[in-house]
Amino acid sequence: MAKSPEQEHPVKAFGWAARDSSGHLSPFDFSRRTTGENDVTFKVQYCGICHSDLHNIRNEWGGADYPMVPGHEILGVVTEVGNKVTKFKVGDKVGVGAIIGACRSCESCAQSLENYCPSMILTYNTKDREGSTTYGGYSDIMVTDEHYAVAIPDNLPLDGAAPLLCAGITVYSPLKNYGLDRPGLHVGVVGLGGLGHVAVKFAKAMGLKVTVISTSPSKKEEAVDRLGADLFLVSNDPEQMQSAMGTVDIIIDTVSAVHALLPLVELLRSRGKLIMVGAPQRPLELPIMPLLFGGKIVAGSCAGGLTELQEMINFASEHNITSDIEVIPMDYVNTAMERLAKGDVRYRFVIDIKNTLKPAA
Amino acid sequence: MAKSPEQEHPVKAFGWAARDSSGHLSPFDFSRRTTGENDVTFKVQYCGICHSDLHNIRNEWGGADYPMVPGHEILGVVTEVGNKVTKFKVGDKVGVGAIIGACRSCESCAQSLENYCPSMILTYNTKDREGSTTYGGYSDIMVTDEHYAVAIPDNLPLDGAAPLLCAGITVYSPLKNYGLDRPGLHVGVVGLGGLGHVAVKFAKAMGLKVTVISTSPSKKEEAVDRLGADLFLVSNDPEQMQSAMGTVDIIIDTVSAVHALLPLVELLRSRGKLIMVGAPQRPLELPIMPLLFGGKIVAGSCAGGLTELQEMINFASEHNITSDIEVIPMDYVNTAMERLAKGDVRYRFVIDIKNTLKPAA
Repeated sequence: MAKSPEQEHPVKAFGWAARDSSGHLSPFDFSRRTTGENDVTFKVQYCGICHSDLHNIRNEWGGADYPMVPGHEILGVVTEVGNKVTKFKVGDKVGVGAIIGACRSCESCAQSLENYCPSMILTYNTKDREGSTTYGGYSDIMVTDEHYAVAIPDNLPLDGAAPLLCAGITVYSPLKNYGLDRPGLHVGVVGLGGLGHVAVKFAKAMGLKVTVISTSPSKKEEAVDRLGADLFLVSNDPEQMQSAMGTVDIIIDTVSAVHALLPLVELLRSRGKLIMVGAPQRPLELPIMPLLFGGKIVAGSCAGGLTELQEMINFASEHNITSDIEVIPMDYVNTAMERLAKGDVRYRFVIDIKNTLKPAA
Repeated sequence: MAKSPEQEHPVKAFGWAARDSSGHLSPFDFSRRTTGENDVTFKVQYCGICHSDLHNIRNEWGGADYPMVPGHEILGVVTEVGNKVTKFKVGDKVGVGAIIGACRSCESCAQSLENYCPSMILTYNTKDREGSTTYGGYSDIMVTDEHYAVAIPDNLPLDGAAPLLCAGITVYSPLKNYGLDRPGLHVGVVGLGGLGHVAVKFAKAMGLKVTVISTSPSKKEEAVDRLGADLFLVSNDPEQMQSAMGTVDIIIDTVSAVHALLPLVELLRSRGKLIMVGAPQRPLELPIMPLLFGGKIVAGSCAGGLTELQEMINFASEHNITSDIEVIPMDYVNTAMERLAKGDVRYRFVIDIKNTLKPAA
């Protein structure tokens, strides 16, 4: 007989879980494994709410395995390390993103692009090697092989740094991997939300010219005056879009609503690249001729590998980059999800796990 | 008053032109410039019929400028060279592809990717620098700056080599530029036509594993037994496609009909690349999630630059690669276009200009 989540492992854990596709989250008792020889165990302090958490708890992408404890922007403090652990000691600040396992032997793993390993294990809603379900960071403790944890430098505030573990790496990875970390190049950022605002910060720190492309004219001031973007284009204003045609080297498209790709492809220079990091659930219309004649690329990019995750954190530390956040208590999470669904957050909710996650009386 | 095509330049020329969007071709008197100091003038011997010729004469892509002399797979023998020409002498065999001009100063030109120069001049149906219309290779003579002409080694038959100037470079360029010229990698070729059959030949000569993907089960024998493909998949057989999921490094998609991209994206390994070289006139449906989760790329590629054009010809010479052709007389061209529209050619029509283009009595 299958064991219940409380009985499966020896270490008691507590978090908030969704029980069905209503996505409603409520207190949940479960268990974690003891610290293995390569493991770090840590007390969670903050966990960001990623838009994919919302999709997953509502089973909008399919494959939901309930009860589901979401959360993959997790920051905490190490409480125990296995005897083979080399990167961490008790008391260190530690972060975990979307991935807590990979095969370590495929071509992607060999390049530390564990995010593209066909056998990767996600931080929640996946079966781990032993067959038990993974539970995410809306919980009091985490345990993971140290390979999948990154060190958090002291100058980064844990709350504002939490969203870097997913939102941050999701935009940093394509900026690096598609060669955009060269000052002077011109990057477009489509959508100014949880991902987009961090993309602008990274791109400016890399010395790039940054154009924000948005459907909302009201975001211009925020984009240019506060975040330092060089240019702002309203995507449904053909004249504005026309004025920038053929000038952009790479576009990071963070929008997960169905939207037109042609105006974005036209912004690109010859051999420019449109990198999709948002996840529209329906296929988008792709015009082929403009891709051909410009030698252009549309690529998907998802999270990042562990080496670049640490590199991104170090870059953020060096340039004092964090996410703009609204810190919320645990019991506000269902309201936060409703607000997130309406886009009513600037720009990321972060749950104050340390102070507000209380076991039921 | 604008001059007529016969009066515009001093050198009399003769070819076949379309006069309107019926696409019907008929004899046409026009003129060419005299040999400039950087020019080579050559007598056309053979000219391939590219599928884009058919689209252009019927104005299916828009922008048709009639009368239009098509043809951009042109092979001939040099009759005159300008005093600054260094690559050619009278009597040399010479080839011209889709491009006869570019700015020579932009970033693409600096890498000899003139095919992506925003100011490139096409071999026909474009205005050249002086404002006169360019006329293609369905004609008796050509004149071009030597930069846009390639030398044809003696062992290549001129008729079978003609289609390499467009079909050949169109598939060779992405194989090279996306790093597939490494033995052992696995390439998929979608569509076994004018482009696809040359792609198979190049890929086998590069030492790759080649899988042909086609809607026509009847092409299996041809693909595997005659062209040497390693594997053949019927694209609308889900079981066959399933069996090869996640195994292909790069796919060269030569199909210009509207077709599904998802089954092709699923054939790719993590971080695999789907390169579109066919030109569907309507947008295709692009599923974003599989691109994201696999870090995959959909790219467009169009013809090639001049350095790689010569490199491709040299590679073809070294490996005795030519196109499979049906040589036709000039006055068969309208019938050939009708057959091409139905896909009734194995695999390329080549017009015997030398022996069959006769000025009207």
